[in-house]
Amino acid sequence: MTTQQLIEQIHKKKSFLCIGLDVDLNKIPKQLLETEDPIFEFNKAIIDATHDLCVSYKPNTAFYEAYGLKGWQSLEKTINYINEKYPEIFTIADAKRGDIGNTSTMYAKAFLEDLNFDSVTVAPYMGKDSVEPFLAFENKHAIMLALTSNEGAFDFQTLETDGKELYKQVLETSKHWKNAHNLMYVVGATKAEYFTEIRKIVPNSFLLVPGVGAQGGNLYDVCSYGMNDDIGLLINSSRGIIYASNGVDFAEKARVEALKLQQEMEEIIKAR
Amino acid sequence: MTTQQLIEQIHKKKSFLCIGLDVDLNKIPKQLLETEDPIFEFNKAIIDATHDLCVSYKPNTAFYEAYGLKGWQSLEKTINYINEKYPEIFTIADAKRGDIGNTSTMYAKAFLEDLNFDSVTVAPYMGKDSVEPFLAFENKHAIMLALTSNEGAFDFQTLETDGKELYKQVLETSKHWKNAHNLMYVVGATKAEYFTEIRKIVPNSFLLVPGVGAQGGNLYDVCSYGMNDDIGLLINSSRGIIYASNGVDFAEKARVEALKLQQEMEEIIKAR
Repeated sequence: MTTQQLIEQIHKKKSFLCIGLDVDLNKIPKQLLETEDPIFEFNKAIIDATHDLCVSYKPNTAFYEAYGLKGWQSLEKTINYINEKYPEIFTIADAKRGDIGNTSTMYAKAFLEDLNFDSVTVAPYMGKDSVEPFLAFENKHAIMLALTSNEGAFDFQTLETDGKELYKQVLETSKHWKNAHNLMYVVGATKAEYFTEIRKIVPNSFLLVPGVGAQGGNLYDVCSYGMNDDIGLLINSSRGIIYASNGVDFAEKARVEALKLQQEMEEIIKAR
Repeated sequence: MTTQQLIEQIHKKKSFLCIGLDVDLNKIPKQLLETEDPIFEFNKAIIDATHDLCVSYKPNTAFYEAYGLKGWQSLEKTINYINEKYPEIFTIADAKRGDIGNTSTMYAKAFLEDLNFDSVTVAPYMGKDSVEPFLAFENKHAIMLALTSNEGAFDFQTLETDGKELYKQVLETSKHWKNAHNLMYVVGATKAEYFTEIRKIVPNSFLLVPGVGAQGGNLYDVCSYGMNDDIGLLINSSRGIIYASNGVDFAEKARVEALKLQQEMEEIIKAR
């Protein structure tokens, strides 16, 4: 999917919501556990109930790898289901990969070509040649960690490097990499003020924002500091939506929570 | 496996060689492609031919994920084969994972519990709560990226942060994390002089060293700057050993290359 197509979807749906498909067998409704592929059945129901309210789904690969072969199969079925039934959705493999060049190329092919995700999250620590292989695919995107929403973000990401915090250096440096137009960034919502500084460095890039809701970030603050002319934000919610209920009404309740966020987003878009 | 058991194996085998199982179907002998599981058949032959010359095997997960479900199955079969037939081997899942706490826990379980690797490589960018879940398993280890062997290592890892290069800060900070005794570090071999500085910070930790051979690092230099009283090094070689030949004699030729390195290591151990 091109960035322009993503922007069109945002305006059409009046939503910049991304739903995180982080499926934990201990948290899903018990009746699903009797099906052949509980993870896929859960995802399918959530997707069918929410696809018109969001522009993106983001399975975190850890939750699938945790179930070994069966988990990997559920991931394949999930991405194929989205691509076939809802091709207008921007898909994100939240994998946080990164390795030396030829190895990153293997990961990039796995996620962007074979599984056919629109994008994959990557880690910046190994630098340019670990990320560029993910940028080499036309109309595909690498979403690089810049400032994350967890406590450990302050261990290294905010250290001063040459008079500039590391995450700013990461943003700055990456702008000069080959096919940097295919880069987006992960920026946590925990401190909305950071977005002002970030927008000075990457005014036009899309930012994937975890940490709204469960992790304490505020949607209005994030939008007021982080939005650009193209909206430029994908706000992720996982647990708050997919685990809204663990009864038979789980998909219905997920829709209710997704709708609340979509309506807030519609208000925000209108108010601009 | 405990660190002490690893040290005992090193002295018994007079080797601190780690063999990287980075299997690419384009590079393995053609006759294997006709078997049901070429990746596993290749690994099995390499392992049977070299297990007495090395102390560790390190499959890089990218090379398995690249083949989807079948690849994941080959990885499972490979780790099970090693654990059953050669339990004295220290196994490394080279996965370079790292995410927020509950997600890292999923990865840690997948690799250290379900697949039963002795260790997994992790990325430091997201800080303490992204790595500590990997340290919570008794006699299991997280091997954290410190200074890597690729060109991009110099993009961020060597930036000055508070008067200290970032990789040194990463080493220093991580020493204070919970169960830090289960931490080892990835340190590339491309500049052996760095090992002097690194040993000042982590004198007792094991270092996993890629980049000897194909990537230009020198074994003797690395040992002279990086070895400690317990040896404290695992030197990785992948392509130089496993692709020594792509004919029917591939396992035999892999043994020849592994033997060369083992003999150099034996000399180095003796000379101390």
